[in-house]
Amino acid sequence: MTNQRRADGSLRHLVTLDGLSRTELESLLEQAQRFVRPYGAPAPADSALAGVTIANLFTEPSTRTRVSFELAGRRLGATVINIDPQLSSSAKGESMLDTVQTLESLHVDGFVIRTAEPGLIPYLAAHVGAHVSVFSGGEAHLSHPTQGLLDALTVRQRKGERLEQLSLAIMGDIRHSRVARSAASVFRELGIGELRLIAPAALLPSADEFPGARRYSSPEEGLRAADVVMTLRIQKERMAEAEIPDADAYFARFGLTAPRLRLARPDAIVLHPQPMNRGIEIASEVADGPQSAIRDQVRNGVAVRMAVLARLLQPRAAPA
Amino acid sequence: MTNQRRADGSLRHLVTLDGLSRTELESLLEQAQRFVRPYGAPAPADSALAGVTIANLFTEPSTRTRVSFELAGRRLGATVINIDPQLSSSAKGESMLDTVQTLESLHVDGFVIRTAEPGLIPYLAAHVGAHVSVFSGGEAHLSHPTQGLLDALTVRQRKGERLEQLSLAIMGDIRHSRVARSAASVFRELGIGELRLIAPAALLPSADEFPGARRYSSPEEGLRAADVVMTLRIQKERMAEAEIPDADAYFARFGLTAPRLRLARPDAIVLHPQPMNRGIEIASEVADGPQSAIRDQVRNGVAVRMAVLARLLQPRAAPA
Amino acid sequence: MTNQRRADGSLRHLVTLDGLSRTELESLLEQAQRFVRPYGAPAPADSALAGVTIANLFTEPSTRTRVSFELAGRRLGATVINIDPQLSSSAKGESMLDTVQTLESLHVDGFVIRTAEPGLIPYLAAHVGAHVSVFSGGEAHLSHPTQGLLDALTVRQRKGERLEQLSLAIMGDIRHSRVARSAASVFRELGIGELRLIAPAALLPSADEFPGARRYSSPEEGLRAADVVMTLRIQKERMAEAEIPDADAYFARFGLTAPRLRLARPDAIVLHPQPMNRGIEIASEVADGPQSAIRDQVRNGVAVRMAVLARLLQPRAAPA
Repeated sequence: MTNQRRADGSLRHLVTLDGLSRTELESLLEQAQRFVRPYGAPAPADSALAGVTIANLFTEPSTRTRVSFELAGRRLGATVINIDPQLSSSAKGESMLDTVQTLESLHVDGFVIRTAEPGLIPYLAAHVGAHVSVFSGGEAHLSHPTQGLLDALTVRQRKGERLEQLSLAIMGDIRHSRVARSAASVFRELGIGELRLIAPAALLPSADEFPGARRYSSPEEGLRAADVVMTLRIQKERMAEAEIPDADAYFARFGLTAPRLRLARPDAIVLHPQPMNRGIEIASEVADGPQSAIRDQVRNGVAVRMAVLARLLQPRAAPA
Repeated sequence: MTNQRRADGSLRHLVTLDGLSRTELESLLEQAQRFVRPYGAPAPADSALAGVTIANLFTEPSTRTRVSFELAGRRLGATVINIDPQLSSSAKGESMLDTVQTLESLHVDGFVIRTAEPGLIPYLAAHVGAHVSVFSGGEAHLSHPTQGLLDALTVRQRKGERLEQLSLAIMGDIRHSRVARSAASVFRELGIGELRLIAPAALLPSADEFPGARRYSSPEEGLRAADVVMTLRIQKERMAEAEIPDADAYFARFGLTAPRLRLARPDAIVLHPQPMNRGIEIASEVADGPQSAIRDQVRNGVAVRMAVLARLLQPRAAPA
Repeated sequence: MTNQRRADGSLRHLVTLDGLSRTELESLLEQAQRFVRPYGAPAPADSALAGVTIANLFTEPSTRTRVSFELAGRRLGATVINIDPQLSSSAKGESMLDTVQTLESLHVDGFVIRTAEPGLIPYLAAHVGAHVSVFSGGEAHLSHPTQGLLDALTVRQRKGERLEQLSLAIMGDIRHSRVARSAASVFRELGIGELRLIAPAALLPSADEFPGARRYSSPEEGLRAADVVMTLRIQKERMAEAEIPDADAYFARFGLTAPRLRLARPDAIVLHPQPMNRGIEIASEVADGPQSAIRDQVRNGVAVRMAVLARLLQPRAAPA
């Protein structure tokens, strides 16, 4: 497991949620909650990171996550720069490390990195200078820790802080999903009552992953009486893996439709990490319906990222 | 017509200049004039929009207009982010609305949008949250309101505030020009004495547009005794529509040359929205000559955009 | 020679280091030294350029140099914008001048320009408005003044301010190198004891360049007892010019390996302008070894750029 702590035990990197204690997670979520503002209210603002420089290095395009991190940093008073890494096709790790070390020498204090390359973010975290922090903005199919935190914050806002009585159903391409892995990690540590995985057999994760979760190939069974339903984006090439001929067939069998959602509890909430394929993994009437908390997830994302950046980088800020 | 006002009648969006009263236009122009600085003087600065976030979404490339809006926002103390929208080729409106709503949830207060898609900007203005403002940075052939305002500001600076005695001649591809439409809108409301349209017959607008304007196919007639001459950019494919074989032939028949400019009043000024095709719609000696106000237009553009952003977004700013 | 001074003799542009006096160079280096911070320390910060706007126009990609200038400007309190110039293939100078003059009208005070086009930066410096400064971020094979300054700063930090006893050896593709030309310019004026050029005959500069330098085709001779060894990036197409069949052959004959470095003084330092081709012009064990000052060069780069921007643009800053 990646060591993401300083010698004193405090968090230095955020590469994965694995290993964070319930107390730590709850403390981060409480700090994030203090940055949440209602829709239409002015943006949260703080100067906790004045003098700090953050670089966003996204090798996978993601306007939403990149802008969310950028605004989180800027609203804390940090200087934020966006870099499109030009990676040579071979030696990605070395090439990225060269870029990161060059930026370190320019006094960049924190790196937000998103990559399809498994292991690259932990590799960089292990090799950067001792004063530098690395934040995952999404690593391959493995981990997306700030997404896990924003999912948890959204559930707490809607369902309260006691998760022991709740049943969370994740539906879709779980096998390839970093969102599902980080959600499982955070909700397990926070004591969720039950975790269910619903997917075509080929898209369920291997048996040694997601300990304690119940597995379903039928949405009709897996959704029954769930409190929280998280649907995942499905890609065309994954349908083929699951021997589902096309998007219509996927929607017919695994789309989150209004009739399916009625199998869950009447007050169940719906989550989706976005971007959505409307009419494929989720019906528009569900995405935009009264049980959807999808928009809250986006709003909570910037609050969670502010909390994480502030917590881990505050030792780098100039004294006030 | 797009409703761009709040319930109290104040302006919320700036999608078009149609419907703005003379008093409103003059008030905006006066506010803009307060932001004008001489060449070589320090840039105007203000903190009216501290705490406000503005997103530039330009689906048509335009460095000049994008930078002008970006500097206008930043010099008012706003946080400005630039987004290159990745639009799916179908369902552009829906895709763009998804992007805009996501950014709204990140507490973006204002959107500056430039697009070749007619109707997209009013569609977005009609669907964004109640606290959000939409600014057109240019909509298809229909509207470019801040360009109209900067043209009006430039004419007022050179010719004074009383426009009743002035004759404005617009020459070039008027049929496809959002610049011409916004200019006609603002100058009509400000009481311009006379509006003339000069173009090959195929590039004149349809008969129900530009009410009250006189139409000419001959520059020699249309330019006579004009006080203000605005030339427009011509695109190669439009020459074909007008059965003009090439750029040289266009220049010969409709280029604003020094001899043609001498048909206007001796103190006539020359406007062009840029970028210029020198030697096609305008001769370099005219573009760079003593009657040219083209450079003033650029300088006035940032002042006008500061005025518009400050006026419409000030209710969103943090209290001082 | 480009006139880069104001009427009072003060520096207005930084296009080349040629013509700067030893006193001026030393004063800039001392100001830069005041911006140097140890690794891991907070970034330098200053508000000397509050109210100033700087535009980066890079037609050659260079994340490192662009970010270094961007952070230098922002840490001085300036507003910095990045522009990707869209140049028409013909008339590059005119097209770039149009862009620059448009930005001038938007009250941009300083331009940082990087280009493969020889003569373009001096052309722009000669044509911009009287209150505007132009900074070279690298011009073709001719000049890279801030690189020369950061090389000099690095040598002074390691070797002290008295350069008369030092021997500097530059090895690699000197003929096409702006880095070598700017280094020669600054070190000659600072009174370096000896300058040696080591390259395959075809990659040595023409005889009328680098006055006073000794030329070597053998690293074994040229490196002997050197105090400072600067290796340069080699491009594949240049190997062909030198009739060297491939990268391995180049490394065998001109790569800076540990055995070759032992021919220099035991306390010799190694410089490289980056990005490095490890295993081609430099061995990894040298690049990362105890004699390498390559990382210091990067750190010193932002300090040098802060000094240059502050010195030349301070007359443009708003009074405090």
